[in-house]
Amino acid sequence: MDHTALAQDATWEQVKELCDQALKFHTASVCIPPSYVARAKEYLGERMAVCTVIGFPNGYQTRAVKAFETRDAIANGADEIDMVINIGDLKDGRLDAVREEIKELKDICGSRILKVIIETCLLTDEEKKIMCRLVTEAGADFIKTSTGFSAAGATFADVELFAAHVGEKVRIKAAGGISSFEDAKRFMELGADRLGTSRLVKLALAEEKSGAEMDGKPDTEVGEKPDGEPGAGGDADGDADR
Amino acid sequence: MDHTALAQDATWEQVKELCDQALKFHTASVCIPPSYVARAKEYLGERMAVCTVIGFPNGYQTRAVKAFETRDAIANGADEIDMVINIGDLKDGRLDAVREEIKELKDICGSRILKVIIETCLLTDEEKKIMCRLVTEAGADFIKTSTGFSAAGATFADVELFAAHVGEKVRIKAAGGISSFEDAKRFMELGADRLGTSRLVKLALAEEKSGAEMDGKPDTEVGEKPDGEPGAGGDADGDADR
Repeated sequence: MDHTALAQDATWEQVKELCDQALKFHTASVCIPPSYVARAKEYLGERMAVCTVIGFPNGYQTRAVKAFETRDAIANGADEIDMVINIGDLKDGRLDAVREEIKELKDICGSRILKVIIETCLLTDEEKKIMCRLVTEAGADFIKTSTGFSAAGATFADVELFAAHVGEKVRIKAAGGISSFEDAKRFMELGADRLGTSRLVKLALAEEKSGAEMDGKPDTEVGEKPDGEPGAGGDADGDADR
Repeated sequence: MDHTALAQDATWEQVKELCDQALKFHTASVCIPPSYVARAKEYLGERMAVCTVIGFPNGYQTRAVKAFETRDAIANGADEIDMVINIGDLKDGRLDAVREEIKELKDICGSRILKVIIETCLLTDEEKKIMCRLVTEAGADFIKTSTGFSAAGATFADVELFAAHVGEKVRIKAAGGISSFEDAKRFMELGADRLGTSRLVKLALAEEKSGAEMDGKPDTEVGEKPDGEPGAGGDADGDADR
């Protein structure tokens, strides 16, 4: 799990708390706004991977800006990068532009993990399949369903589609609307390698509080994130109820 | 009015249609995603001002990225810039950082108009007053209520607060939730110099269709924008019903 705080009004205090929770629950990373990367890296050092977001959440920045933003994030200490594709370019059939943008960001990332958010809720199945191909061709590490700032999050069908169409080196992150451990298990059975959700966290903390044992599998470990403003895109992994 | 299409999945065809409508209705500008600025400028030439958005909609990019994005937009032909403040910095009391970021972007803009979106729905009245002061001190041209991608849009109270607290050189843009000509009139009476809404457009086109005369005041002229995806941040001037 990428332990995430991308609310528009997230404060450093909230981001720092998120970092502490991530350390406690051994999440895969903390995923935080670009302007907090330098401080989070200084605070965490090598104890936890710092992930940040590029062209987020709308994806319609120029390629030059996304490239600069990626370099800037890495210079500030980012270990992982979650980028959003240019959806307008995809819908306009400018597929070379979409692929080359991903490829340029992957080149900048080098050995660092690059996840590509395609915002499935805005795409047709045909467009999703095209993106599976382009993400694979561009050499990115993950395809990810959702920003959490659009109309909806991950579906079982999307993850199944990803699993059937991405190359074998491309992993899958499902994000958004994962509201129970049963759902989480199902997403992983269908092929998801990482999950984004904050609802499981609340369940897990409730279980912890009641003394129940937690499932210790690395990819299902969870941590709490601070609540975002209601309705304000507080959960960038897609848990917002819209 | 800034005639706006900032939906996450806006295509060039939709942006071009928006440009045509802006020309027809003589709006103050078209406000479009950064990746369309070069094409829109090539299409429009000097017939219409092109406005784009920086650090949009979440505002938590680094200052270096916002500065680069602004330079990139201007190099692509942008005539006006709508930036989003770093809300976390404001809430963390890093007021110098907030002001210096606005100031740097205004320096880059030079004589071009810079509007500063403070996302009123996430701020306390005290924070709004602080922003009136910082926007004035930084020398920006407009203070603007909302991105249209957060919890809510402009209120009469916000525009009144702005009018009472910004410097005399700072103009006011109200955006979001303006659903009738009566409301539009009220916002302008309270001090708004520009308005952002797409609902008035539909009313105006309906009136035009029925042969009714339109009010020809420059700041109330309206044009239609293509409908965005429902619930997907389609109306970046805040008309989304959330």
